[in-house]
Amino acid sequence: MSAPAEPPAEPPAELLRLRGSIDNIDAALVHLLAERFKCTQDVGRLKADLGLPPSDPGRESRQIDRLRALAAEAGLDPVFAEKFLNFIVAEVIRHHEDIASERPQG
Amino acid sequence: MSAPAEPPAEPPAELLRLRGSIDNIDAALVHLLAERFKCTQDVGRLKADLGLPPSDPGRESRQIDRLRALAAEAGLDPVFAEKFLNFIVAEVIRHHEDIASERPQG
Repeated sequence: MSAPAEPPAEPPAELLRLRGSIDNIDAALVHLLAERFKCTQDVGRLKADLGLPPSDPGRESRQIDRLRALAAEAGLDPVFAEKFLNFIVAEVIRHHEDIASERPQG
Repeated sequence: MSAPAEPPAEPPAELLRLRGSIDNIDAALVHLLAERFKCTQDVGRLKADLGLPPSDPGRESRQIDRLRALAAEAGLDPVFAEKFLNFIVAEVIRHHEDIASERPQG
């Protein structure tokens, strides 16, 4: 029998400390996203009630400009901030289309 | 000349209120993401210093399980939470590969 492979080293303390911070931030992100989707579900129901279209390009364009500016101030890549908003908005529009498709057309 | 098209109605007050909350949450998300990338940049530098690989499948698998559980508790779709983490991790790995490629090999 060959000698057993060297067991993987315990991650260094500094790595564990950083991962703890990342885990805390991720928990905050998940909870904020849950609140954000509550708001957008309400927006979806309101738009369906009023017969407004799920997507609103003017609003989305203003959101992108604002988030890019906030990102630049916060030291976050504005290109990433825009990709992030697009990622969220794609999910929101999917929710809104689901809501609209559940309503009787009239 | 035909009559001018009816001007678009001002969005209803309830929609404006919800959009205000969404904008506040988005500002918080952008600032948390900026902090998260500071942590992962530090992780990237540490890994490059120690010669550790940029990606760590075991860690990522534990993060996914944890975030799915947190999402379920918070009323967020766990499938979305996992897609969200994958979206962020893809950006992080890109940063780490950039950091590693800037270091002399050997």
